Amino acid sequence: VEGDVVERLGAAEREGLGRLLPEWRMVEGRDAIGRGFVFADFSAAFGFMTRVAMLAEAQGHHPEWSNVWNRVEIVLTTHDAGGLSARDLALAGAVDRLVAG
Amino acid sequence: VEGDVVERLGAAEREGLGRLLPEWRMVEGRDAIGRGFVFADFSAAFGFMTRVAMLAEAQGHHPEWSNVWNRVEIVLTTHDAGGLSARDLALAGAVDRLVAG
Repeated sequence: VEGDVVERLGAAEREGLGRLLPEWRMVEGRDAIGRGFVFADFSAAFGFMTRVAMLAEAQGHHPEWSNVWNRVEIVLTTHDAGGLSARDLALAGAVDRLVAG
Repeated sequence: VEGDVVERLGAAEREGLGRLLPEWRMVEGRDAIGRGFVFADFSAAFGFMTRVAMLAEAQGHHPEWSNVWNRVEIVLTTHDAGGLSARDLALAGAVDRLVAG
């Protein structure tokens, strides 16, 4: 939750990352993870974004993201921690469950 | 409307651009216009994005855009025309009226 102290992931937590979030990649040159999504059209893409926005507000942690027509790119990092934190893993997992469900 | 032929802006139309849309700038290296918006928080930023999404659907023309927390960056260009067209000016004007109103 915003306001709490948040720490960057340690080495042990990073080791399991690929197994935990196989759809996400490390973003080049940053301590951040990213995933791209493709939908049928803009309406479907923005519908997804709206659901992610609600997740983000509920978790008190927000994505960096962009949209072009039917494509959405999400990047997750924790500015307060100076890199990846448990908050990013939680939001990534919730987003994955959204598209899987 | 999508499906119609759309042409890039001519020289005469471009001359009036700065006066017509003073808040928008040419995007470096592209035939596109951009404008940044700052809001109180994520909720306000995403509320704005939702209203722009509805405008875009109504106009059959969509932005390239990104959001980080309380900031939204909008870039407008017309892929079918290979650059700026009247569709971009129409959407930019509608977005301006949204934040002005």
